Amino acid sequence: MEKVTEKQLEKWVDHIRIYANNGKVADYIPALKRQNPEINAASFFHLDGECVQAGEADYFFTIQSVSKVLALAVALMNHGEDAVFSRVGKEPTSDPFYSISKLEVEKPSKPINPMINAGALAVTNMMSGKTTDDMLHEILDFVHLLTGDETIDYDKEVAQSEYNSAFLNRSLCYFMKQNGIITGSVEELHDVYTKQCAIQMNVKQLAKVAGIFANEGKDIETGEQLIPHHYARICNTFMGTCGMYNQSGSFAINVGIPAKSGVSGVIMGVVNDVGGVAVFGPALDKQGNSVIGVKLLEIMSRYYQWSIF
Amino acid sequence: MEKVTEKQLEKWVDHIRIYANNGKVADYIPALKRQNPEINAASFFHLDGECVQAGEADYFFTIQSVSKVLALAVALMNHGEDAVFSRVGKEPTSDPFYSISKLEVEKPSKPINPMINAGALAVTNMMSGKTTDDMLHEILDFVHLLTGDETIDYDKEVAQSEYNSAFLNRSLCYFMKQNGIITGSVEELHDVYTKQCAIQMNVKQLAKVAGIFANEGKDIETGEQLIPHHYARICNTFMGTCGMYNQSGSFAINVGIPAKSGVSGVIMGVVNDVGGVAVFGPALDKQGNSVIGVKLLEIMSRYYQWSIF
Amino acid sequence: MEKVTEKQLEKWVDHIRIYANNGKVADYIPALKRQNPEINAASFFHLDGECVQAGEADYFFTIQSVSKVLALAVALMNHGEDAVFSRVGKEPTSDPFYSISKLEVEKPSKPINPMINAGALAVTNMMSGKTTDDMLHEILDFVHLLTGDETIDYDKEVAQSEYNSAFLNRSLCYFMKQNGIITGSVEELHDVYTKQCAIQMNVKQLAKVAGIFANEGKDIETGEQLIPHHYARICNTFMGTCGMYNQSGSFAINVGIPAKSGVSGVIMGVVNDVGGVAVFGPALDKQGNSVIGVKLLEIMSRYYQWSIF
Amino acid sequence: MEKVTEKQLEKWVDHIRIYANNGKVADYIPALKRQNPEINAASFFHLDGECVQAGEADYFFTIQSVSKVLALAVALMNHGEDAVFSRVGKEPTSDPFYSISKLEVEKPSKPINPMINAGALAVTNMMSGKTTDDMLHEILDFVHLLTGDETIDYDKEVAQSEYNSAFLNRSLCYFMKQNGIITGSVEELHDVYTKQCAIQMNVKQLAKVAGIFANEGKDIETGEQLIPHHYARICNTFMGTCGMYNQSGSFAINVGIPAKSGVSGVIMGVVNDVGGVAVFGPALDKQGNSVIGVKLLEIMSRYYQWSIF
Repeated sequence: MEKVTEKQLEKWVDHIRIYANNGKVADYIPALKRQNPEINAASFFHLDGECVQAGEADYFFTIQSVSKVLALAVALMNHGEDAVFSRVGKEPTSDPFYSISKLEVEKPSKPINPMINAGALAVTNMMSGKTTDDMLHEILDFVHLLTGDETIDYDKEVAQSEYNSAFLNRSLCYFMKQNGIITGSVEELHDVYTKQCAIQMNVKQLAKVAGIFANEGKDIETGEQLIPHHYARICNTFMGTCGMYNQSGSFAINVGIPAKSGVSGVIMGVVNDVGGVAVFGPALDKQGNSVIGVKLLEIMSRYYQWSIF
Repeated sequence: MEKVTEKQLEKWVDHIRIYANNGKVADYIPALKRQNPEINAASFFHLDGECVQAGEADYFFTIQSVSKVLALAVALMNHGEDAVFSRVGKEPTSDPFYSISKLEVEKPSKPINPMINAGALAVTNMMSGKTTDDMLHEILDFVHLLTGDETIDYDKEVAQSEYNSAFLNRSLCYFMKQNGIITGSVEELHDVYTKQCAIQMNVKQLAKVAGIFANEGKDIETGEQLIPHHYARICNTFMGTCGMYNQSGSFAINVGIPAKSGVSGVIMGVVNDVGGVAVFGPALDKQGNSVIGVKLLEIMSRYYQWSIF
Repeated sequence: MEKVTEKQLEKWVDHIRIYANNGKVADYIPALKRQNPEINAASFFHLDGECVQAGEADYFFTIQSVSKVLALAVALMNHGEDAVFSRVGKEPTSDPFYSISKLEVEKPSKPINPMINAGALAVTNMMSGKTTDDMLHEILDFVHLLTGDETIDYDKEVAQSEYNSAFLNRSLCYFMKQNGIITGSVEELHDVYTKQCAIQMNVKQLAKVAGIFANEGKDIETGEQLIPHHYARICNTFMGTCGMYNQSGSFAINVGIPAKSGVSGVIMGVVNDVGGVAVFGPALDKQGNSVIGVKLLEIMSRYYQWSIF
Repeated sequence: MEKVTEKQLEKWVDHIRIYANNGKVADYIPALKRQNPEINAASFFHLDGECVQAGEADYFFTIQSVSKVLALAVALMNHGEDAVFSRVGKEPTSDPFYSISKLEVEKPSKPINPMINAGALAVTNMMSGKTTDDMLHEILDFVHLLTGDETIDYDKEVAQSEYNSAFLNRSLCYFMKQNGIITGSVEELHDVYTKQCAIQMNVKQLAKVAGIFANEGKDIETGEQLIPHHYARICNTFMGTCGMYNQSGSFAINVGIPAKSGVSGVIMGVVNDVGGVAVFGPALDKQGNSVIGVKLLEIMSRYYQWSIF
C-alpha cells in the first residue's frame, strides 16, 4: 500500500473543511457546546513509527466515547473475557447509544454491547480501586502506557459539566443496579465515567493508540505486547460492528475499518497491519459522528483500499 | 341496597382467610417482607357515618401506592387539571407499574398515567415546599384533613428501607429529569415519595378516606367539600381504569368499582353514593394486588351489586 | 334524572355542528373517505321505550369497530368466558388499536383486549359456521335480534373496499395464526371481519342496541334476556376501559360512560338503567373518534350527570 | 498463509462431529425437520481454483437464508444502491431475524437490514418479471452464473412446506405492504421467497460462490467481473455485521470472517483474497446457526488467522 503522506493528508483535510457546515456541535453536554466547529485535525501513525498530521494536530479534545474501547481493554486485561461478557453482551444494535428500553425488554437484563452507554457504564463499573480516583487511574495509567505520555489527564470542566447534566446515564445506572448488573455507588461510577470521557488527547496521541490496536496490541517501537492480541482483536471487532453509534452498518459499508467515535467530534480508526488514524472535527451528524471525520475516512479508505470487507 | 353489616363482613373475612396461601408477601422492599401473611382486616364506611369492620381493624400498614391517589388529588387542587396533565397522561396501560420503556418510545416522553410509578413520581414532584418535609406535609396534611386524625404519620423504617433499595424509581426519575418532566433533586423527590408511600393507616381510617371519594369529595359528617367534586371524580376514574396495576381490566370485570391497590397488601375501594371500603392482607398475587383483598371485593361487589358497568 | 328530550338534543346537535371542522374524515378505507363531513345525527333510546333523535337520524353508516362489542357478546354467549379469555386478554392499553408490537413482546402472545384490532379479529375467529356467510350471520342474526329489524345488512362496497386495503389486519392475523391464537383461513376471517365492520345502521337502531346494554341485556319492550346480564356487563366494562381507542382514559374522565367508537364516525354509549345513545359525525380526531360525537357526549354527560365515576 | 488441505479439513470435520449433539434440527419448517442431524460436510475453494472437501460433500441441502445475500447482490446489480437502500436499512440489530416490532416502532418503517427476514422479503420484492417464475429465475440465473452449473434448482417439497407454514413471513409482508415498502401480491412474493430459500446446493458449489465474494466479485477461473467489486463488498459487509442472526457479534469476535447462515444448517464464509468456505450440519444452536459449522469455522479461523479484526 502507498504510504499516507503529510502532503496528501493536508490536501484532504483542506478539501473536507466545508463539510463541517452539514453538522452541529454537540449541545447536550454544556461544556462541549462551546467548541469551535471550524477546528479540524487528522493524524496517521504508521506501524514503522512515522506519524503524519494535518490541521490543528496539537489541539486537545476530550475523547468521550472513544474511552469505551480503552476501558473495555482494561476490563478484559484485569478480569478476563468470561467476567466481562457475563455483564455485557456482544451483539451490535440499531438502537441509539443512550437507549434504555432493551434493558427492560431483554431477559436477562444485560446491556447489548460495551459500545452503548449502558454497556460502557457496566464496563467502567469493573474498574478496581478504593476511590474513584483509583478507578479512573486504571484507565489513565493505561492511556499513559499506550501513548508513552504521562501528562495526559482529563478536562475537569468538561467532566464536571457532564457530571452535572447526564441524567440519562444515571437512569441507566440505577436500572442496572436494580438488576444486579452494576454494584456500588451510582454517583461514584458516574464520576469515574464522566472523567474517563473527559480524558484529553490530540490527534497525534490518539493515532498512536489506534496504531497499537492495528499492531496486534504491541508497542510500535519496542514490540512489547501492551494488550494481549486476542483482547486487541475483541476491541477491534466491537469498533467494527458497533463503534459508530447507529451508523455503524453504514460506516462499515462506506469505510470498512474498525473505528470508534466520540461526541466531542473525534474518530479513532484502526487499519490492521498498516497504522492508526485519528480525526477531529466537532460538527456532528444526526447519529453523533463527526461529519468531517466520516468524510475523511471515506476518502482515505477508498484511496488506500482499507476496507476489511 | 342492603347495608353492609359487621356480622356479614366478619363472616366473609373469615371465609376468605385461606386464600392468603395463594399469594406471597412483597419482598422487594426489605421492611415489607417481614409482614405476617395471615393478618387480615376490612372496614366499610357508610355515607350515613356508620363504620363497620372485621379482622385486625386497628392494625397499621403502610399505604404504599394508595398514596398515588392522594398525591394526585393534592396536585389537582394546588395546580389544576392543565398543569397536572401537561406532565402526566390519562390513558390506562397494560404495562407493569414499574415499566420505563414507554417513556423512551413515546414522543413526547410523558408517563402514561398517574397510577404507574413514573406518573406518580411526576405528581409528587408537584408538591410545594422548600424542604422535603414541607412537601411531604402537603400530603400528610391532606390525609389529616380527610381522616380527621392528626396522629397519622409515616413509618420511618419502611420509608428508609424503600429509600435505600428503590433503584428502579431513581432510574425513572433521572429519565424524566433528562426529559424535563420532573425538576429539582431526584434524591429529595425520592425521599418524599418513599415517605408518602410509608404513610401508616388502619382499614377504618382508609375506609373513611374512600368514603369521601364516594361522597363527591364531601366530608361525611359535615358535608364540607374537602375535594372539589370534579377532582374526586378524576381520582375515581383513574382508580377505575388503572388502579389495580396490570390487573385493572380484569378487576373492572370481576368487581367493577374504582379501587387502588398497594404492595403492602392494601386495597381501597369506592362505592359511589354508598360508601368506602378498605381491605388489608399482605399476601399478593403476581400483579401485586392483595389476594384476599381482591377476593373479598369480588364477593361484596357481587352480593351488593356494586359494579358500575 | 331529567329525561333527554328531542328539543334539547336538537339544540345541542345544532350547537356542536361547527366542531366537525376540527376533525378529518377517515381516509385509510377508500370507501369511507367519500363520507360528507357535515352530516351529523344523534339518538337517545330511553328504557321506557321512548326514542328521541336529532339531525339525519335515518342516515345509514357502517358501524366499524362498534361491531367489536357485538361480536364479543356473541362469542361470550356461544363459547363462555373461559374460552374467550384464553384467546384474548382483559387489560386496557395505551397502544393504538392497530398495534402489533405487543403481540411479539408479550409471552404468551395474546391480544391485550378485544377492543383493539388484534383482539377483535381473534374474537371474530370464534364465530361458527362452515362458510364465511354462516359466520357473518352469527353476528347479523344477533343484530336483528337486538334491533328487531331483519333488514339490517352490511354495505358491500365498504366491505370490499376495506377487504382490498386492510393489509395491517392481515399482518395481525398471520402473526396470530403463527402463534396459534387464530385458526383457519386468514382471508376468510378477514372477509367476515370486514363485513361485520360494514354492517349498516342508523343512530336510532344503534341507540336501541345501546339501550339493551344499559338494560342489563334485556329487551326494552318485552324484558326478555337477550344477552345474559353478566356478559352485557363484560361488554360494558370493555367499553368503559378501552372503547374509545387510545383516548379511552381521557373519555372516561370527561364523559365517564361505557362507549364504543367506530372510524366511520359513530359512537355508541351506554347509560346504565337510563338508556342508550348513538351519535354520528364522520370527522375524526387524531385517535379516530368522532369529534362531534365526543363533544356531544361530554355536554350530555355533564348536563345529566351520567358519569359512573 | 498455509493452504487448507483436504486431509486437514477431514481431520477437523471428524473432530467436530460430536458437537452435533449440542444442537437441534430446525423444526419450524416441516420438511426440514426430517434432516439427519449426523450428516456433515465442508468444502474450501481456493482462489487458485483448487477445491478441497470433507464429509458428505455431494449432499444437497437447501440454502435458506444464504439466499438473502444472493438476492441482495441481484437487487444491487439491477437497481443500484440508492434504490435498494431506500427500502431497507444498513444497520445491524440484536433482534431475532423474524422480529416485527421494529417495523412498527421505527419511523419511517423500513426493515433494519437485508439479512433479517423483513429486509430480505423487501429485497426479493425487487426481483423483476411478469410471473413468480421469472422473478425466481433472476436469482437462479445468478446462481447458475456464479457456479457454472445450470442444473441447480430448488427443492419443490421444502418450498411447498415452507410456503404452507410461514405465517410470520406473511405477517411481515402485509405489514410492509401497508407501509408501502413492498408492492404487489404478498402470496406471489412469498412464493418466490420460499423457492429462493429452497435452492439446493452442495458444499462444493457453495464454497465456489463464497470464493467469488472473496475474489472481489470476479470469476475464479476467468477473472470476469461477475459482481461489481463494490457490490460484492456490500454483501461481505452485511455478512460481517449481521450474517449470523443474533449471534453475529459473537461470531465476529470468535471467527471474524463475513459469513451467512441458513436454518437448514449451512454456513457460507468469505476469506478475502484467500478463498470461500461452506459447511453443512443440520443441528442448530438457539440462534439458528449450525453448531458444527460455527465450531469448524472457529477452529479454521484461529488456525489460519483469518479474522479481519
